[in-house]
Amino acid sequence: MPTPRVEIIGVEGIPIVKKEDNLPQLILDALEKQGIELLDGDILVVCQSVVSRAEGRVRKLADVKPSVAAEALAEQINKDPRLVELVLSEAKYVLRATKEALITRTRLGWICANSGVDLSNVDGGESASLLPIDPDKSARVIRDYVAEKTGKRVAVVITDTFGRPHREGQVNVAIGVAGMKPIWDRRGEKDLFGYTLRVKQIAVADEIAAAAELVMGNSSEGIPVAIVRGYRYIPDDEASSSTLKRPLKRELFI
Amino acid sequence: MPTPRVEIIGVEGIPIVKKEDNLPQLILDALEKQGIELLDGDILVVCQSVVSRAEGRVRKLADVKPSVAAEALAEQINKDPRLVELVLSEAKYVLRATKEALITRTRLGWICANSGVDLSNVDGGESASLLPIDPDKSARVIRDYVAEKTGKRVAVVITDTFGRPHREGQVNVAIGVAGMKPIWDRRGEKDLFGYTLRVKQIAVADEIAAAAELVMGNSSEGIPVAIVRGYRYIPDDEASSSTLKRPLKRELFI
Repeated sequence: MPTPRVEIIGVEGIPIVKKEDNLPQLILDALEKQGIELLDGDILVVCQSVVSRAEGRVRKLADVKPSVAAEALAEQINKDPRLVELVLSEAKYVLRATKEALITRTRLGWICANSGVDLSNVDGGESASLLPIDPDKSARVIRDYVAEKTGKRVAVVITDTFGRPHREGQVNVAIGVAGMKPIWDRRGEKDLFGYTLRVKQIAVADEIAAAAELVMGNSSEGIPVAIVRGYRYIPDDEASSSTLKRPLKRELFI
Repeated sequence: MPTPRVEIIGVEGIPIVKKEDNLPQLILDALEKQGIELLDGDILVVCQSVVSRAEGRVRKLADVKPSVAAEALAEQINKDPRLVELVLSEAKYVLRATKEALITRTRLGWICANSGVDLSNVDGGESASLLPIDPDKSARVIRDYVAEKTGKRVAVVITDTFGRPHREGQVNVAIGVAGMKPIWDRRGEKDLFGYTLRVKQIAVADEIAAAAELVMGNSSEGIPVAIVRGYRYIPDDEASSSTLKRPLKRELFI
């Protein structure tokens, strides 16, 4: 038996991504320059900021007209009303609004700070990036393009860095998935001792996102894409990140 | 510049760990058999179940006398009263008790299912493992032993698999840390565009735990230890997993 081994490889040399850039081609170009050939079964992990920029999901703060509600909330929590306007426009509802944080459930159902609206990694604070409209679709587009151009079957995970309850610090998580089951349902399997696992459902897409940040985050945001190689995911052409969203009525840990 | 690359290597051939086994030596023996030499800067990721077994943190259900409170709660939520007794004995308080789940804040301050008391990976359901008494100390013991025997400076992360709010599925997280800062505080750094990061504090110990499960979880629980190699953590001889615990008064995401 070969040693079980997973590699996380940072993809360098991707230029600053702009609206309508062909992001999958930029990724393939960077891989070629780096001398990395994609393999069947690789997972391409792509951070939200480059996807959002390619999809034009960037708003200049100077162009944003805050609503009365955004103005009022902004004053209450001491934030820029134009940023608050963007956050509210991307939110289903506000979970918490304090001077420390504006936490929302996003349009797509994620719970995170500022609806994922982010001033970092855009243009120095003049503009904000919004999460991609449909990150699963963004992931599928990259996956299909890679298959067409290289003939390789890869999975794609789009990530963002979220804070979470109970634990300090942020971790990279999956917000879009293509080609692999985001959750590995092990219920019903037996452990080494014959005990039948009853609750084990591993959120592998989130673990892959977290793993990728070990190379992505480690060089001043210069590495927006990583390859996770050697992990045997469960292929799924119909994959959706929705299976990672816990509906309120199933909430257990709060 | 060499390609940024992190490797996750599964450590195989660790026998079933029993009380008072010398766990760090078992790990070194397994590495030697596998032909893997530890390097300075490696991170040894060790799952809770082998640490608990080595430390004798295993209880035979047949030996547990449930209290009246445990009996009453067990009947209400349809669980084994002996298991409930163990869960309560490891809990600071109960967060939620339903037929689906018994969620507590543990003695050490983690919020998780069943206070981390686990029937899996012990002996087929007759006994339960409890979390190590002091997982940071468990991590330090392994780290110091490795340094003494091999001369290598490694970091150690003890992990368990926790469910979490808002998102489905469980992920591997750090419950004990030695030799590295569990959180990489990037507040004050500038991004590629000159924007000063204001909230970024990456829970790298949790990301390392998650990454490790990509090899640990993938072979029917036969791989309780992994090496994460190539990640430049911030060394810290006084590291503690406590910095990962968010106190209730700082809770933002619920």
